[in-house]
Amino acid sequence: MGIMLSYQEARAWLLERARPLRTHQNVSLSQACGRVLALPVQAGVDVPPHDNSAMDGYAVRCADLAAALPVSQRVPAGSVPLALQAGTIARIFTGAPIPPGADAVIMQEQATAGEDGKVSFTVVPQPGQNIRRRGEDIANGQVILEAGKMLTPADLGLAASIGLASLPALPTLRVAVFFTGDELVEPGQPLGAGQIYNSNRYWLVPALHKLGCEVIDLGHVGDALEPTRQLLRDAAAVADVIVTCGGVSVGEEDHVKAAVEAEGELTLWKVAIKPGKPLAYGKVGDADFIGLPGNPVSGFVTLQTLVKPFLQRRMGLDVPPPEAQCLPAAFAWDRPDAKRSEFLRVRKVAGELQLYPQQGSGVLMSCAWADGLVWLQPGQVVKPGDALAYLEMA
Amino acid sequence: MGIMLSYQEARAWLLERARPLRTHQNVSLSQACGRVLALPVQAGVDVPPHDNSAMDGYAVRCADLAAALPVSQRVPAGSVPLALQAGTIARIFTGAPIPPGADAVIMQEQATAGEDGKVSFTVVPQPGQNIRRRGEDIANGQVILEAGKMLTPADLGLAASIGLASLPALPTLRVAVFFTGDELVEPGQPLGAGQIYNSNRYWLVPALHKLGCEVIDLGHVGDALEPTRQLLRDAAAVADVIVTCGGVSVGEEDHVKAAVEAEGELTLWKVAIKPGKPLAYGKVGDADFIGLPGNPVSGFVTLQTLVKPFLQRRMGLDVPPPEAQCLPAAFAWDRPDAKRSEFLRVRKVAGELQLYPQQGSGVLMSCAWADGLVWLQPGQVVKPGDALAYLEMA
Repeated sequence: MGIMLSYQEARAWLLERARPLRTHQNVSLSQACGRVLALPVQAGVDVPPHDNSAMDGYAVRCADLAAALPVSQRVPAGSVPLALQAGTIARIFTGAPIPPGADAVIMQEQATAGEDGKVSFTVVPQPGQNIRRRGEDIANGQVILEAGKMLTPADLGLAASIGLASLPALPTLRVAVFFTGDELVEPGQPLGAGQIYNSNRYWLVPALHKLGCEVIDLGHVGDALEPTRQLLRDAAAVADVIVTCGGVSVGEEDHVKAAVEAEGELTLWKVAIKPGKPLAYGKVGDADFIGLPGNPVSGFVTLQTLVKPFLQRRMGLDVPPPEAQCLPAAFAWDRPDAKRSEFLRVRKVAGELQLYPQQGSGVLMSCAWADGLVWLQPGQVVKPGDALAYLEMA
Repeated sequence: MGIMLSYQEARAWLLERARPLRTHQNVSLSQACGRVLALPVQAGVDVPPHDNSAMDGYAVRCADLAAALPVSQRVPAGSVPLALQAGTIARIFTGAPIPPGADAVIMQEQATAGEDGKVSFTVVPQPGQNIRRRGEDIANGQVILEAGKMLTPADLGLAASIGLASLPALPTLRVAVFFTGDELVEPGQPLGAGQIYNSNRYWLVPALHKLGCEVIDLGHVGDALEPTRQLLRDAAAVADVIVTCGGVSVGEEDHVKAAVEAEGELTLWKVAIKPGKPLAYGKVGDADFIGLPGNPVSGFVTLQTLVKPFLQRRMGLDVPPPEAQCLPAAFAWDRPDAKRSEFLRVRKVAGELQLYPQQGSGVLMSCAWADGLVWLQPGQVVKPGDALAYLEMA
């Protein structure tokens, strides 16, 4: 009838069950931001590919520089220079290849052209100065991107810089969602007596998108067993993970629980977190089933603290332990929960944590206002100035 | 010939020129994540809309509870209860309206049903217990979302919870990008002598997407004035902001500078940041023009530190001053730049900052490896353990 787990136990238990996606596909760079890299990427070239100029200026042979010298060639970026003739210099621009025989670049601000066209310099250059060497930044064969990372803009620029037009990425995790309850009405519709708006749909779908999932929104089903079973089968056919809100506590009206048990298997927990507590994990066919609490704040916090790491590992990401920042409280909290870890909704202002005054779980106001959660241990009280564990909500 | 500005001066100068978008449109909740809210949102209803049960259990009148009592009605969520008959209790479920006359809910775990169907309780309830009051979370008329914020999943759930199907959002900022240089080759193509891959395109476009911009990628143009002028006119016709990489320093080969000056106006700066330095701001028609340095690392860091706040304010967001975390260094740095603010590419590991060993600006390796920047003042050296200003790269 429900196992009671600590926050850490529940997190570890879920993570153990997150089988990372394995098959991969080549994804073009312009589609790859936010995808998870399936294999390490090795450079197949040197970067830069040739010695080149770090400046707009003049390529010189240091030994020649006793007097003003004539300019024997002009080397814009993208051109192929000739060998530098003895006793001459080359006009050169940033990124342009260094002419064979030149051993330094002098920036143009340190050059003066005489009336005869010869150029003299206000400095004595060191050999190698203002030259970027071939392979200095990336050597042929070097691993430049590790598997299991979510690809960032900089990663894609890096891949492009070595000529890769695509990268081996894991598939996007497909997450099906549906929403249950006779009392739910879609926003924009009039509200009848005893009805409430379906708010879970409108935070859950974008929150899953932000994590990098493909979301399959199967809509709303009333409190009835057969339609719920049908929706579960539909969801399992198209998704890697099924997420619902509500219908998984121990009350009689919870058809989701009965439907998952009929179509697969289900473990119900109580997790010692507040807001939160009821959480269900199961399997329907080959899909994972996650049942979030129906209360929006409980569901939101449970997604952030427990389900997000599960989904991230399921996507193939390396998931580190929760990394809390240590920040001072600008508030007091003297109503600790004796048995549960509490996640207070807070906002970081000028390096301090401010508390949303109403921490009740009835409405998402606190979550909309907050930019993060303070993770309190069971029984922990807070005095202003106490150092607290702050988890940013991305 | 280029004004030299400090980092803070350049940031403030750019922000002053960022005219926030003004016209707005109603955007359905399912399309609104990441959009900027144009007007404050006031609640037009109470939340919750009626007193309701916080538990699965029994709705009772506390004064009646001397003995075991019969269950006179059953109130699932979404139903409309009758007034509670004196001397009876109501079976009730989470979220269901409280029957008139009931003044507390007792959780089902504290109830025992006898063989006669009457229910007795192991606790003495307090009036009001386990009841969520109408309007307790949001009162009719309350401002729930402030203008100028980027809409998050929680904001959308909150809007849905009060029945709003759409929100007044500013338009998505349209940013046109193009890339210049005879030496540039697209990744996947063979590289000729003196050529390099166009890496700027592949980090800049997704970085702008991540900021919430619509990106119009106008491709690549060679080092020639007329095609560059045409591209600028095309860009100004469709975009709010034009961003290019390269072509804006003082060298002769910089056709972008000449093209912007011919089609509009341009201010060239040297900004005392490293990597970075050259930056251009101008106007072409009604569009802003931003010229990033052509070096990928310089361009990337300049986008993160200077252009991102400009674009955010241009999008209509409230842009706070850069909020640095204060974190200890796990490295030493004894090569400070005497005159420029330096942005070192670092990674946060177990609460400490690790340095990418090659801080040269030749390649995006450091930016791909890093999760943030350390902001050093001119001349600042670093010893292990020093507290540093860390800017996360989102």
